[in-house]
Formats: sequence, structure tokens, C-alpha cells
Amino acid sequence: MDYRIEKDTMGEVKVPADVLWGAQTQRSIENFKIAQDINKMPKEIIKAFAYLKKAAALTNLDAGVLSQEKSDLIGQVCDEILEGKLDAYFPLVVWQTGSGTQSNMNVNEVVAYRAHLIKGGALTDKEKFIHPNDDVNKSQSSNDTFPTAMHIAAYKILTEVTIPGIEKLRDTLQAKSKQYMHVVKIGRTHFMDATPLTVGQELSGYVSQLNHGLKAIKNTLAHLSELALGGTAVGTGINTPKGYSENVAKHIANLTGLPFVTAENKFEALAAHDAIVEAHGALKTVAASLMKIANDIRMLSSGPRSGIGELFIPDNEPGSSIMPGKVNPTQCEALTMIAAQVMGNDVAINIGGSMGHFELNVFKPMMIYNFLHSARLIGEGCVSFNDKCAVGIEPLEANIKKHVDNSLMLVTALNTKIGYYKAAEIAQTAHKNHSTLKETAVALGYLTPEEFDAWVVPVEMVGELKD
Amino acid sequence: MDYRIEKDTMGEVKVPADVLWGAQTQRSIENFKIAQDINKMPKEIIKAFAYLKKAAALTNLDAGVLSQEKSDLIGQVCDEILEGKLDAYFPLVVWQTGSGTQSNMNVNEVVAYRAHLIKGGALTDKEKFIHPNDDVNKSQSSNDTFPTAMHIAAYKILTEVTIPGIEKLRDTLQAKSKQYMHVVKIGRTHFMDATPLTVGQELSGYVSQLNHGLKAIKNTLAHLSELALGGTAVGTGINTPKGYSENVAKHIANLTGLPFVTAENKFEALAAHDAIVEAHGALKTVAASLMKIANDIRMLSSGPRSGIGELFIPDNEPGSSIMPGKVNPTQCEALTMIAAQVMGNDVAINIGGSMGHFELNVFKPMMIYNFLHSARLIGEGCVSFNDKCAVGIEPLEANIKKHVDNSLMLVTALNTKIGYYKAAEIAQTAHKNHSTLKETAVALGYLTPEEFDAWVVPVEMVGELKD
Amino acid sequence: MDYRIEKDTMGEVKVPADVLWGAQTQRSIENFKIAQDINKMPKEIIKAFAYLKKAAALTNLDAGVLSQEKSDLIGQVCDEILEGKLDAYFPLVVWQTGSGTQSNMNVNEVVAYRAHLIKGGALTDKEKFIHPNDDVNKSQSSNDTFPTAMHIAAYKILTEVTIPGIEKLRDTLQAKSKQYMHVVKIGRTHFMDATPLTVGQELSGYVSQLNHGLKAIKNTLAHLSELALGGTAVGTGINTPKGYSENVAKHIANLTGLPFVTAENKFEALAAHDAIVEAHGALKTVAASLMKIANDIRMLSSGPRSGIGELFIPDNEPGSSIMPGKVNPTQCEALTMIAAQVMGNDVAINIGGSMGHFELNVFKPMMIYNFLHSARLIGEGCVSFNDKCAVGIEPLEANIKKHVDNSLMLVTALNTKIGYYKAAEIAQTAHKNHSTLKETAVALGYLTPEEFDAWVVPVEMVGELKD
Amino acid sequence: MDYRIEKDTMGEVKVPADVLWGAQTQRSIENFKIAQDINKMPKEIIKAFAYLKKAAALTNLDAGVLSQEKSDLIGQVCDEILEGKLDAYFPLVVWQTGSGTQSNMNVNEVVAYRAHLIKGGALTDKEKFIHPNDDVNKSQSSNDTFPTAMHIAAYKILTEVTIPGIEKLRDTLQAKSKQYMHVVKIGRTHFMDATPLTVGQELSGYVSQLNHGLKAIKNTLAHLSELALGGTAVGTGINTPKGYSENVAKHIANLTGLPFVTAENKFEALAAHDAIVEAHGALKTVAASLMKIANDIRMLSSGPRSGIGELFIPDNEPGSSIMPGKVNPTQCEALTMIAAQVMGNDVAINIGGSMGHFELNVFKPMMIYNFLHSARLIGEGCVSFNDKCAVGIEPLEANIKKHVDNSLMLVTALNTKIGYYKAAEIAQTAHKNHSTLKETAVALGYLTPEEFDAWVVPVEMVGELKD
Repeated sequence: MDYRIEKDTMGEVKVPADVLWGAQTQRSIENFKIAQDINKMPKEIIKAFAYLKKAAALTNLDAGVLSQEKSDLIGQVCDEILEGKLDAYFPLVVWQTGSGTQSNMNVNEVVAYRAHLIKGGALTDKEKFIHPNDDVNKSQSSNDTFPTAMHIAAYKILTEVTIPGIEKLRDTLQAKSKQYMHVVKIGRTHFMDATPLTVGQELSGYVSQLNHGLKAIKNTLAHLSELALGGTAVGTGINTPKGYSENVAKHIANLTGLPFVTAENKFEALAAHDAIVEAHGALKTVAASLMKIANDIRMLSSGPRSGIGELFIPDNEPGSSIMPGKVNPTQCEALTMIAAQVMGNDVAINIGGSMGHFELNVFKPMMIYNFLHSARLIGEGCVSFNDKCAVGIEPLEANIKKHVDNSLMLVTALNTKIGYYKAAEIAQTAHKNHSTLKETAVALGYLTPEEFDAWVVPVEMVGELKD
Repeated sequence: MDYRIEKDTMGEVKVPADVLWGAQTQRSIENFKIAQDINKMPKEIIKAFAYLKKAAALTNLDAGVLSQEKSDLIGQVCDEILEGKLDAYFPLVVWQTGSGTQSNMNVNEVVAYRAHLIKGGALTDKEKFIHPNDDVNKSQSSNDTFPTAMHIAAYKILTEVTIPGIEKLRDTLQAKSKQYMHVVKIGRTHFMDATPLTVGQELSGYVSQLNHGLKAIKNTLAHLSELALGGTAVGTGINTPKGYSENVAKHIANLTGLPFVTAENKFEALAAHDAIVEAHGALKTVAASLMKIANDIRMLSSGPRSGIGELFIPDNEPGSSIMPGKVNPTQCEALTMIAAQVMGNDVAINIGGSMGHFELNVFKPMMIYNFLHSARLIGEGCVSFNDKCAVGIEPLEANIKKHVDNSLMLVTALNTKIGYYKAAEIAQTAHKNHSTLKETAVALGYLTPEEFDAWVVPVEMVGELKD
Repeated sequence: MDYRIEKDTMGEVKVPADVLWGAQTQRSIENFKIAQDINKMPKEIIKAFAYLKKAAALTNLDAGVLSQEKSDLIGQVCDEILEGKLDAYFPLVVWQTGSGTQSNMNVNEVVAYRAHLIKGGALTDKEKFIHPNDDVNKSQSSNDTFPTAMHIAAYKILTEVTIPGIEKLRDTLQAKSKQYMHVVKIGRTHFMDATPLTVGQELSGYVSQLNHGLKAIKNTLAHLSELALGGTAVGTGINTPKGYSENVAKHIANLTGLPFVTAENKFEALAAHDAIVEAHGALKTVAASLMKIANDIRMLSSGPRSGIGELFIPDNEPGSSIMPGKVNPTQCEALTMIAAQVMGNDVAINIGGSMGHFELNVFKPMMIYNFLHSARLIGEGCVSFNDKCAVGIEPLEANIKKHVDNSLMLVTALNTKIGYYKAAEIAQTAHKNHSTLKETAVALGYLTPEEFDAWVVPVEMVGELKD
Repeated sequence: MDYRIEKDTMGEVKVPADVLWGAQTQRSIENFKIAQDINKMPKEIIKAFAYLKKAAALTNLDAGVLSQEKSDLIGQVCDEILEGKLDAYFPLVVWQTGSGTQSNMNVNEVVAYRAHLIKGGALTDKEKFIHPNDDVNKSQSSNDTFPTAMHIAAYKILTEVTIPGIEKLRDTLQAKSKQYMHVVKIGRTHFMDATPLTVGQELSGYVSQLNHGLKAIKNTLAHLSELALGGTAVGTGINTPKGYSENVAKHIANLTGLPFVTAENKFEALAAHDAIVEAHGALKTVAASLMKIANDIRMLSSGPRSGIGELFIPDNEPGSSIMPGKVNPTQCEALTMIAAQVMGNDVAINIGGSMGHFELNVFKPMMIYNFLHSARLIGEGCVSFNDKCAVGIEPLEANIKKHVDNSLMLVTALNTKIGYYKAAEIAQTAHKNHSTLKETAVALGYLTPEEFDAWVVPVEMVGELKD
């Protein structure tokens, strides 16, 4: 391979001749040979940096500390990053310095060198028109840019991927709930037969879980909207022009269309990532909801002949390489695996979030890697589950009816008529004798067949139905 | 021991002669011999049940399905439970049925039998004036009472113990922050010397973390304010009078003075405990904050001679059984152990919360046990840390000054004067030669002694100070 | 309350007149008002300290640094602690200093003062015959005693409670497996009908899980058998007589009857608790096994009429306060809650174990509290599950037979006869037409009725059976 | 794009014209659009499948159920997969069916179609010479192949990446420990000054941790060596020739050079992955060790002027984009982030491992994804930390000496001379007066200057040194 020589404050480094990165990126490639093929710094972070660097250039222009030409050039390269044109030049991994310094420098270098090319220079020029530190990183530190990029990326993925994904699934379940609101089925508590409810009621519980989960996520957005930028090295804002923090937050808000503001307290914003810990707490709550929902649906659709068999779900692929004709609830399985992953990611985030020291938390890349992973898995997982499973859910009414008709727990309707103890005796006797409730109730002399028919009516045991 | 015979729908059970519980409580004692000395059902749950049973009796009275006398008697016993007079009669453990049915029945039995005694009856009477199921449990199921008790207990402990505890610590740190806002100290990032800030600024980061944590907790209260009661067996509200759900929630709100409402969707309220998962997500966020704060304080107070030694914290006890005169940051240690515990509890809660099936989650006792544990540890841990440590924090100004004066990172002030590269050369050279920044800067010929003194002024590097 | 005055190196402290503890215990009570009613230092640790203090006294006697009389007195009090006679004098909680110093001093004080009483002295004597530090704690530090007590307590509970509990359940399941080895039932994969196996085969999987779990636990005992004692303050063994470490480990081994040895490296033994982290890794593995087993059993016993209903489990208590006659798999629920708790405890232990600094880990009390909790929950949980559930498991053969006969996955037997694709066509067609495999196979012309009967024989699809 | 038509039992599917996969792989691409760019099925699993399919073909040949030609062709393609030549044809992600069925079919399809090409056929041929199900998958099911691939991949990565990585770091630390065994330094407990030890002793604790961690990992290999293959659909071994299980395990052992055996109990091997849960328990133990070690090293190297500053570690890259000349402990940061990740992965694995149902665990891809992630991060992380940090560790003797000389805890040497109480008085007085121990001891009249010099000798306080 051909190389060129790049320099940083530690000296010279050989860099592949035609790449847009410089000395510090190259050092990091060589210093951190850890999972380089599978754990690249997430693309969402790179794009967040593009917004950030453009906003910083505009703010520096406003403050009179950067020229119009330089600001324009920086902005132009940032736009190229946002369009995905420079993806090949962000080779670094998550497992680097805990402040993300090398990824900040990677962006600084790519922006500076690409701008230099646009300006007509060559990569081999000793001096570039734009300097990674003095221009692209002006009025910034890794310590405030990386957490700012974390919040931009987190806020964006929640609002663009996670929330819409959950809402899509919620909407489908809501429509199904309405559609099947009058299909009476047996309830199950402790996995045991209980009193009846309707398919629509059961589904409405899932809808309510997702609605609460959406609220939980949205509750955390305010904290995520606070940006560290302007705190620079330790939170004091050293080397920033007056008004910089507020102005750069406004520029970021403009560029992203999201309601970002400058963090009131920059010391927290660098030294802790409680906003990430908190917001992921909402994601793990949704994960718990999804585990429950997907488990229920796979269990309700179990069978086809020796399971519960009350729901039909779409057949998407052959389910077995050995059992012909087998079909499995694969979307449920993917979603429950995702739920488990998110709960694991939560622990990694908690540990990282708790271990900041003094003026800086140095678990930043690991934290945002897990956060973005979870946010995306939930969002895309919900869409997949929705499109390939939930939309096709249908009640299997023959099985449903059979289960209701057989149930001993319809006896609960008699509590208020003959008391809990006699009702229990009927149920226990019917169970022992493999007989029906009605036969048993009459045989025990506790009521007449007519009373039974009048009092034990499944459809009247499900309460008021909301359509 | 003397025994009497009690009965339930399964038959007769021998119960210690003078206890207020009945057959089902006794069965549970015998069926679940697991950690009986250390894992009693939390007292907060028993008290929550007392509010609930009283409110249910009032609601049943309102609805005309329970007599005034019975309602009064039930209420009277509930008051005794709230006063702690009947503590001895709640012997059951967390590791029982996952719906908490036996604990619900324990309360039903104690209320019924104690009421019978008040009424003048004897425990050995075959029929009691008040029946555990038909009276005390009227219009209820374990499946809606236990989750209601969970929310009452959780809401109460958060507002009575957790939040006030955090606020107390927050207030102390805020006062300290103000008091020491002008004490300039060296910043540390990556555990390495960085640019200066003030002691007050550093402390303000902790205050901001706790303020955000308080907001996070409060954000979850709305979900916790929703009560399952009225859903009965599976969420349909079978065997409840009209208007029961709304009315009983109002009574509970009145009795507790907290803004409880009936849950809009009872199916979720029985089958999932996302409100607990979500609220504990806020608690684990606070745990992460406390870990950071307590770690910082113990590190900043380390020494006394070979550590960082910038903060004084109170000496509370001899610190070593072998090293004479040693004093340790024991409150920091208790608080960090608490933080670790809360993060572990979070996982237990997540798993439990994710594993509801169909119409019921049966990890209820385990979930609320962990929740109340965390809420209490955080609340009481903050108070202990506050009273025995935070209130006594003082800066050790001699050490602080020495560290600032020595720091090489003051060079950062020169970035905007001579550029990042020359500034780096000064710092690196000074480090190598064990010399001062000023000597080195002048020796390298980058600035005059007068310029150095004018440009490198720690107190001017800390930004604007908010008193 | 009456008080007496006790003294330590920090000065005087008022102590309740008649308690056996002294100044440092009292300070800790006042300094750590955190969960004092529910989180006492586990009794297993107190007893482990009794073994340790007795062994240390014997070793000091051997080394000629403690008199026979003092050694005897110390040993005598330790025996009283082991008999439970002094339980009331160990009031401290888990949330104290992270080295457990106050609990070590609590033991030192109780031993010294009780010995003084035995010797004929009074608690109010200014000088006691035995000194907490200079005699009871001779040749020791909290830093090596507490981790030694951790290993003693952990090893003991694993071998006395956890392993026997798991073995008891394993033996029952093994017997059931043998007993029902020939009962052919439908298999289920993905919760969907699959090819058959026998009830005994299914149970044998659980037995194999528990056997592997037992091996996993036993693999960790060697690390737990290493004792820190002799390392004293930082691992160097300062202030210990020659040969002390080896000798005191021998005494502990003698007294406990367990194969303890001195840790080869004392620096690890104080600064890290990887043995606890590792051994709890085995416990969480068993927790995962138990979750699977208990889940299966509750699902297999679900119904009685609208579930899977293939296993009978004992009815232990009325299952519902509202649904008469309901019986629930409550032992399964307790066991799965325990499994969730253990997985949560694991995280707390991991965090604590990872956060030692320099020469000492100061998450000791929290770590051992969680360890002992898990070890006990698993041991006692297995016994409860065994005695009240597993011993009563019986196959419900009518349901089992119905499920086998209906299954479409018996078609798998035809793969090797007519190929996977035609077999799939048969299964899919039968499913669509609600017909049997045999009818469909013949109707499609792929085989004769005689061939079907010869080739599709459930009992021949279960492989070789091991009785 | 050009397409061809492929078929499976569900019908026709359009597949890109020139890819080697078939209908089922294509369905999975379309059905699971979840994190497709970042969560591919790990390459280690694909290679494990290559060993497995080749071994199965050889075993089927041995058993006379597959022709020599087909067996050879299958083996030839497997070799190509192992050489990485077919990497482009394994596009599936982790988030698919929980049995990994589609990945098994992906391998079956690629092997069959590539073999058909080698044989001279075309991808568009309707019938291929080798059939994915009937030939490549002969005597197999996804349910036994995927867990077999899990164990092969897990065992290989542990022995090829994880263990050697840890050993490399262990060896370096051991050499450093020996080299610096006589450098006396201050000990620190509770982050506070304590009695002295040597740099070599401190490092020996890390060595001991890693040695124990290696043992812990190796203890879990036996369980991982058990292969599920031969269990087929539900563990009964349906559709396998006699002796298949044992023989195929031998072939896999031969091909991999690792001591694989057939699992004694196939029901466990399909339905549970306790071996993965258990082995990852060892990995999380090592993670806890690495967190401790890396934390210590970054703290000991903190400064350069206002920290502890006792260790030099190599400068690998400029540490700050704003603070010139700053160098940070970046390898420590990467390693501690890895430790946090592994602890999070552990929870995901525990949850997945606990949630198998009946005859199959369907969290397989998620579990092995996390396992391989952790194993690789630890292995590669240790190598990176070793090569770029540990090998360059050197004691900074000037600082070390200063800290020892100043320490008040040297007073501990006086315990056995003048008793704990007087020693404490000396230390406390010296601390209060900012004086030395010697001055204070003499001033208090407890000993002469000569006695002090004779008794307080740091190098004599560190015990016996093992070189």
C-alpha cells in the first residue's frame, strides 16, 4: 500500500496515501485492534458529529473567530458526511479512549482534509487550509463534543426509529383490539384457566403497555435535549467565545429540527451521562413490555393441535429443517431475543454511567454504542414484528369457544349468588368427576338448571366493552 | 403449642391457638419454608393493604353491598394495622405464590378475625361475624389487590423516603457548592490533570445530577398512581358493583392523601408491572449518580498524605482494627454498595416484569420486594451520607492550591494565543524536564514572562461563576 | 434506657448498659441508620467469624503470643456464638464500611466483653481482661478477617444448604424420569408441536441440567477454599507471627471440617473477591436451569381444561381469593421468582467485585449478603419445590395420549421414506383440511394405509430409552 | 438486479441471480430487517457450521446413507467456507428465529448450491445434485446443529482468542511483578494510605486474579465440549443412523483438533444452554478482574502532577483535542469499557438461557452472539492492553518514595511494641500537627528516636518477598 506522512503533536505517522483521515485516526487504528470488523463507532454518532461540526463552524463564524470561507467549507464537508459520501473514512471502533477523543479527531481530520481537497489542495500538502484542531475543533473539546454527539444521536434515533416503530405496532394492536372486542375467550392467570375476557380486551392490555412505554420514553427526551457543547475541557467553557453555548445549541436545533438546548450545568454534562442511563431505563421498560407481548402471542398461537391454539399468526418461512410442514412464531422469537439484549445492554450502560470520575465520564463510546443498539433493535424489531406477524393475527374461534365452554372458572359468576365456598365445591367436584359445572351444580342441589343458565353467561362476565 | 382448627375450601388446618391468621396463612407458612427469617413480605405492603381494605369496605358500603357495621369494623382493624399493632400476624414471606394471593388472604383473615374479636366473638367460633373472602375481600381479587398494594407502597415510599432523602443531600451539596464557588482547583479528566475549575462548580455537577434524578423519579409517579383495583380476577371487573373502580380509587386517594386514580386499562394493570419497571429505571439512574458522587468524594478525600487530599470529610469511627489512627470514607462505601445493590435489584425487577403471562404477572412479591428495598436504601442512604459526611465536607485549600499551581494543563489558556501545537510543545517539554510551564514557555521563546503571567491565570480559566 | 461509657481511639461513647458490644459497634449503629430492621449482617457471617476468632486464638497460642487462658476464653465465647446464644449482640447492618471493619470489631468487642464476664469481671470495668484489638483481633486485620469470614460462610452454605437442596430435587426428578420413561408424549419446540419423546426423557433433561449445575458449583469451591487470613492490613502479613497463615487455615479447617487452605496470594485475597464472583456465576447458572424447569412444569400442568394439561402437580392451597376451586402452580412461581432474584443478585455482585481499588475491595458486606441470599434461596427453594411439588408430579396420560395422536409432526418419520418435501405437503394439507396425517397421506397417494401404520409409530420415534 | 426463482416447501422465492443461497435464506433476509448492517450472524458460527456439515457428511458416509461423491463435495465446500471464500453468502442476522433455523438452512443452501456448481451444474438448474435438506442436512435438525455450532464456536474462541489473550497479559504482569518485587511503596485501602507493600507484590495480586480467571474458564470447557448433534428434532435422535452421535462428535473432534464428545443427555443439549451461561459466568469473572486491574493502573498512573503518579504507562496518542500535551490512560479505558460490556452481555445470556421452553431454547442466536462478543473483547482487549500499556509499565520511584516516607500508617509497625491505642494517638497527633510520625512519637514520649528508626522500617513491613 502507498502511504503519506501525517503529523500530530506526538510526531509523524504513516497513513494510507489516499484516505481522508490523519495521524490521530491512524494511531487509534493501530492502538486498538479490538473487534475492528464488528464494533465500528456507530454511524449515528458520525452523523451527529457532522451536525455538531457544522453548527460549531456557524457559531464560530457568528462570533467572529472563524472566517466565512472556512465555515462554509466545514459545513460543506459536514453535508457530505450526512449524505453518507465519506463513510469509508470513519474506521475507528468503540473500544478506544473512553472520551471518544479519537473519534472526534477522526471527524476533525476528515473535515479538514476533505475541505482542503475541495479548496484545491492535495493530501500531501504539509500545511492544510483548514486545521483539524485549530479550525474544525475550534471552541470545542472532545469532552464536550462527544457527549453532545451522544445526545444528538440518541434523541434522533428515539424519535426517528424507536418511537415510530413502537407506534406502528401499537396502532396495529389497537385496531385488532377493536376488531376482536367481542370475541369472548377464557382468561388465564398463573397459566391456569380463569374467568373469561375478550380477545380485544386482552390485546388492549398490550396497547396500554406500549402507550405507557411511549410516554416513558418521551419523559426522558427533555434530559436528552440538553447539550454539553460549550463546556469544552472540564465544563467551564474555557476557550469559547461569549454566548457560544447557547448559540451553538440553537444552530444544532436548527440543523436537526429537534428542540436541543444548552445544558444548564456543563459539569454534569461531561462527567455523567445520567440522561443516557435514564432514557435507556425507558427502553428497558419497553423491552419488558415486548417480552410479555411476544411471549403471550407465541403461547396463544401454540399448537397447532397440542397447544393453546387460540390465535393464528402468519406463516413466514418453513420452520424446521427436519420436521416437514412445521411453522414457528419466529417474529416472536426475534422480538424476545431483542428484549433480552436490551436488558443486558441496560446493565452495561448502568455500569458505565456510574463510573465517571471527577470532571469526565470515560465510558462514553460503550454507553452510546449500547444505547443506539437498543433503540434500533426496539424500533426495527417492532416494525418487523408488526409487518410480519401482528398485522396477520386472527382469532381461531373454534378453539376459543371450546376453551370457554369447558372452563370451570365460570363458576366465579356464582360467588355473589351462593357464596365463595359453595362455588368452590362445585368447581372442585366437577374437576374431580370430569363433569360440567352445570351438571355438578344441579347434582349438588345448589341451583336449578335454569338458574345456572341465567347466572353463568360468559359474555356477561367480561364487563363493559370499549369499542 | 396450643392449636385451633381453621377451615378453607381445601379443608381443615391446625393454626396456633392465639394468632389472628387463619387456614390459608397457615398453609403458606408450611408450604414456603424459604428464607423465613429474612424475607418477610415488606411491612410497606401490609400497610398498603390496610389502606386498600378500608377503602374497599367504604366503597362496598357506598354501593350498598356491605353493612355499615361490617364496614366500620373492617376500617377499625385496618387502622390498627396502620398503627403497627398487628405486625406480629403477618408472617408470610416473599417467596410464595407470584400473585401474592396468600398475603392478600393473610390480610383478609387478620381483618376478619380481629374484627370478630372486637365484635365480642372468639377465635374458636366456627362462624365469624366477618368473612375473609365474602366480606373483607368483597369486590376484590388477589389479582387486583396485590398490584394495587404495590402501587400504593411504591408511591408512598418514593414520596416519603426516597425523594426527601435525595433532596436533603441535594440541598447540602447545593449550599456547599455556593460556599466554595470561588475556590479554584485543578480539574481532572481521565483521572489526569486538566484545566482548572472551582470546588463549587464541581459540586454543582452533583447537584444537577440529583436534580435530574428527582425529575426522573417524579416522571414515573403518574404511571404508579394508576390502581388496578376493580379489575378483580382478570381485569374485566367481574363481581364488582357499578362505579366501583373509580370510587375505590377515590377512597384510597383520600385515605393516603396521594393522587391515586383508577387505571384506565385493568388488563395491563394485572398482567404487567411496567410502572414498577419504569419507576425502578429512575431509581437505578439515581443509583448511578450516587455511585459517581460517592466515588468522587472518596477519591478527593483520599490520603491523608499520599492521595489526592483536596476534601476533608468527617471522621466517624476508627477505620482499621490493625492500622492505628486510620480513618476511612465509610459513608461513601455504604452509598456505593447501595448503588450496586440497586443496579442488581433492577435486573431482578426487569426479569420479573418481562415474564407475565396472559392475564397475570406472577412475579409480584419479588418485584415489589426489590423495589421497596431500592427505594428505601436510596432514601435512607442519602440521609446517612448527608448527615454523617456531606454536611462536613470542607476544601483542604493548601493541597488544592498546590495542585493548581503545579498543573501543566494551564497551558490550555495559550491555545488561542499561540496555537495548540506550540502549547503542546511547552507542556511536553516542561513535563520531560520537570520544570514549570512558565520557565519552559520562555525558554522555548514562545512568549515573555509578562505575557505568561497575563495569559495564564487559573481564576480566569473557570468561566463565569454562578453564586 | 441505662447506659455505660465505652471508649475507643476516638473517644467516649454511650452504650446501652447491658449489651455486650462496645464503642465501635455503637458508633456504627448510629452512623448507619439504613434498613436496620431488614438488612442485618447475615448470621452466617457472624458464625464464620466465630470459627475464625477461635482459630486465630489457637494459632496465637501456638505461636506463643497469646496466653492459654485468653485463648481458652476466646474459644469459649466463640462456641457460644456458634450455639446462637449471643445473637442479640450483633446489631449491625450490611450498609456500613465496605471492609466490614465494624462487624469485625463488633465480634471483637462481644468476644472480649463476654469473656470478661465469664472471667468474673463487670461490663463497667474500665480495663477488661481481654482486649478487643490487642487480644481478640491479634495477628488480624478487618481486611483479612472479613474476606476469610466470607469464604467460610460461602463454602459452608454451598455445601450445607445449596448443594443438598439441588441434589434433593435432582434425585426426585431422576426417580420420576425413570418411572415415566415409557410414557410417550408430544415434543414441543418453539412452543409448537414437534416429534414425540417420553415424559421420562423430558425429565431427564432437567436432571442433566441440575447435574451440570452441581458440577459448576463444585468447580468453584477450590477458589473459595482459599483464605485471606494472615494477609492482615494490605496482604503483606504485617504483625503476624511466623507460619501464622498456614496454621490458622489449618485450625479453621479443623473447626469447620472443610478443606480450607491459606490463599497463595494474599494481595488478591484482600483486594478482589473473584472467588465470590465466580461461585455466584455458578449459582446464576443454576438459577437459569431452575427457571427453565419450573416454567416447563407450570406450563405442562396448565389447565385444567384449556391449557396443556399433561402433568398433575399437587394442590397445596386455594389459588384464588375470587375464583372458587382454582389451584395454581405456586411452587413454580416461588422458584421462578427466586431465579430472577439470583440473576439480579449476580449483577450486584459483579459490580461490587469489579470495583476494588488498590489493596482492598470495599464492597465486601454487600457482596456476601447477596451471595448468601442466593445460595440460601436456591437451596431452600429447591427443597420447597421438591417437597411440595416435584414429589407429586404425575403424568395425565389421557391428555398426553390425545396430544400425541393428533400431532402432525409424526410426519417426520416419513422423511427417510418419501423425502422432506412430500412429507411437508402431507402435514400442510392435513393442517389446512383439519384431517389426520394418515387420511391425507393416503389421499395424496404417497403411501398406503398399511405403510403409514408401519412407518408412523410414535413409540419408535423416541429413540433408545435409558431406564 | 437479476433474479432467479428458488423453491422451498412454502413455494417460490425470487433470489438474486448469482448468489449461492436459496429460498429460505432469502425469506429470512426479507422477514428480518433488523440491524442488518451491524448484527450479522457471527463468522465464528458460520465456520463452526462448516466443521459440522463436513463431519456430518463423513458420518453419513460411514453409515452408508450418503454417497462418497456427495460427501466429498460437501466437505470441499465446507473447506471453502473455512478458508473464508464464501463469506459473502451468509447475509443473515442474529435477530431471526430463535433456533437459528434460517442460518442452518443458509449453510445447507450454500453448501448444496456451491457443490452443484463444482459438479458442473448451474444455479438455475431446477434440481441440484446435492439437496440442502435431504443431503447437507441429513441426520440433522436445526435444533441439534445450531447448539453444536454454538459449542464449537465457543470452545474455539475461548482456546484460541480468550485464553491466549489473558495469558499474554498475565505473563507480562508476572514479569513486571518479579522485576519490581523490591520497590517498596505505600499501600492503599479504602483509597486511604495504609501500610507499605512492594510494587511487585501489588502486581502479583493481578497475576493471581488472572490465573484464577483462567482456571475458571478452563473449568467450564468440559461442559462446552458436549455436542448436541445427533439429538435432531427434540433430542431423541429421530432420523439418525445407529451410532451417529458418537461418530459425528469424533469427526468434529478430528477436524477441529478439540476434545469434543457427544452430550450424554440430548434433551438438555437442545432445550437449555447452561454450558453457555456457565462459561460466560467465567468470562464475567474475568471482566470483574480486568476492571479492577485497569482501574488500579489508571489511578496509579494518574497525574502527572496532581494525582497519585506512581506508575508510568506509555504515551500512545495525544489525549485531548483542546488540552495540549495531555496524555491519557486510553488502554485502561478501553479495557474497562469492555468489562462493562461483558457484564451486560452476561445478563442478556442469563435471560436467554433461562427462557427455554419444553424441548427447545429459542434464544440461541442472541446467546451465542453475546458469548462470542465477550470472548473476543476479552481476548483482543487483553492483547491490546498488554501490547500498548502493560509492557511499558514502570514505577516512578521518586513519587513512590515520597509517598512511603510521608505515610502515617507506618505507625502500624508500633502496634506490637506499644499497643494499638498509643500508636493511634501518635498517628492522629501527627496528622493534626502536620508533623512526622517520628517527631510526634518522640514528643509524646512513647519512644526514643533510636527506637523509632529501629522499629519503623518500611522494607521490613512488607513480609517475605517471592521473586
